[in-house]
Amino acid sequence: MSASKILSQKLKVALVQLSGSSPDKMANLQRAATFIERAMKEQPDTKLVVLPECFNSPYSTDQFRKYSEIINPKEPSTSVQFLSNLASKFKIILVGGTIPELDPKTDKIYNTSIIFNEDGKLIDKHRKVHLFDVDIPNGISFHESETLSPGEKSTTIDTKYGKFGVGICYDMRFPELAMLSARKGAFAMIYPSAFNTVTGPLHWHLLARSRAVDNQVYVMLCSPARNLQSSYHAYGHSIVVDPRGKIVAEAGEGEEIIYAELDPEVIESFRQAVPLTKQRRFDVYSDVNAH
Amino acid sequence: MSASKILSQKLKVALVQLSGSSPDKMANLQRAATFIERAMKEQPDTKLVVLPECFNSPYSTDQFRKYSEIINPKEPSTSVQFLSNLASKFKIILVGGTIPELDPKTDKIYNTSIIFNEDGKLIDKHRKVHLFDVDIPNGISFHESETLSPGEKSTTIDTKYGKFGVGICYDMRFPELAMLSARKGAFAMIYPSAFNTVTGPLHWHLLARSRAVDNQVYVMLCSPARNLQSSYHAYGHSIVVDPRGKIVAEAGEGEEIIYAELDPEVIESFRQAVPLTKQRRFDVYSDVNAH
Repeated sequence: MSASKILSQKLKVALVQLSGSSPDKMANLQRAATFIERAMKEQPDTKLVVLPECFNSPYSTDQFRKYSEIINPKEPSTSVQFLSNLASKFKIILVGGTIPELDPKTDKIYNTSIIFNEDGKLIDKHRKVHLFDVDIPNGISFHESETLSPGEKSTTIDTKYGKFGVGICYDMRFPELAMLSARKGAFAMIYPSAFNTVTGPLHWHLLARSRAVDNQVYVMLCSPARNLQSSYHAYGHSIVVDPRGKIVAEAGEGEEIIYAELDPEVIESFRQAVPLTKQRRFDVYSDVNAH
Repeated sequence: MSASKILSQKLKVALVQLSGSSPDKMANLQRAATFIERAMKEQPDTKLVVLPECFNSPYSTDQFRKYSEIINPKEPSTSVQFLSNLASKFKIILVGGTIPELDPKTDKIYNTSIIFNEDGKLIDKHRKVHLFDVDIPNGISFHESETLSPGEKSTTIDTKYGKFGVGICYDMRFPELAMLSARKGAFAMIYPSAFNTVTGPLHWHLLARSRAVDNQVYVMLCSPARNLQSSYHAYGHSIVVDPRGKIVAEAGEGEEIIYAELDPEVIESFRQAVPLTKQRRFDVYSDVNAH
């Protein structure tokens, strides 16, 4: 029953804010490898590494199909094999950003995060549930649904350190995914994300901090670096927020690795001080987890 | 179907950040009257006025019963009669902060917001659903549940301008009440609130802004002014946040009135640009409103 069990020990994490992706998938994968290797040299006790949304493909609706891969653990695709090797080589949990996924049965394309354990095993995937379809006048228009299909489930992953939830970018605007994972006992929500230079300044920090404080969990957002040569200008500012809403690590706009140590004691002490998890009133409102 | 119907017209509001309450209930009520009169002189087209939590009684568990009133529209108590007169005199909707309420049937005490229409009619009340029971080491310990009982329902109020939800202070930490009201079509959440000098700097602005952005509604928090002579040091900083998370009015720490004009166009345009209300996935998670 102790909240300390939510996260079994202190956990070093690294968020790799890779450059906005070039059209060369293998070059993008190699670049991810170079940065993960650098992270493991700089902070050898890192146990969990996060990559950004669409880190090995252009973020463009007319490119998703071209870059898509069939995710089948028995016949690993290029990216699955590559990331699996990195996870096992460095003995890390790897939240492998997102890649465009082709479902061969339906011919549908998804924006999908693939997650590996320390043995290089693909332990789960999350298909973006809420597609980024927005029209901000004089700001940004983007419609993922032109070529992508939405995922059909929330994702909470069990590891030897405890559980964490995974959402992707726009999923963050819907509080329910974080609530679901937190109420299943997650110590963190991880969002590979690519906000842009319009929505980033407006809401990036606000959303990260509110998901953390409302659920008393760590929140990690991993963005691509800003690349003004690409059609989509990512916000950058990859961030780690603690359960009290304090920003414990934040990147700038360029290519960069940020590190943080997640501490079970921070979760536990805040939950003891402000015991939200015991004070909810599911007699007054439904639990989002009541499915 | 137009979002403009959520709020039927532009609406001027005033939040009265009254001084932390003296032990003299009638003096506190008179002070509220003085400030409302001033507000109506300064901004005569104000249509909705909000008072702070516990504006006419000390905020102290050992005082709630002594100051409590039986809320019965047929036999108006001191505060009900007084606020009803103010609402009808100035033709305003009055969210009358909170007062300690005694339920004569059960002998229970509640922290209750009473809401009046322009005719002075008591149109609804909200009993604080989530009691403020916290223990922050080297910060603050407070246990409303020592003497208060929790409310049993969420509150969404219908007016001629549209609907708004009411929560009280600690209710704000639980996203569900704002979600419930917003999904019933509210244009705003109003929280008479008394955060303190520990929790205020940590989370006051964050919670106001995130309830606004997640639900694309206006959010108003009305605090008592800070009074270092009282045992509880309120944070102040009464605030109005627009649906995009922008702070449109904010008080300092002293006694003060802040004004804002709520604009249907701001709600509508943000909901068109970022159509969260149409993108929720109640097939993946339960609606908190599914009761």
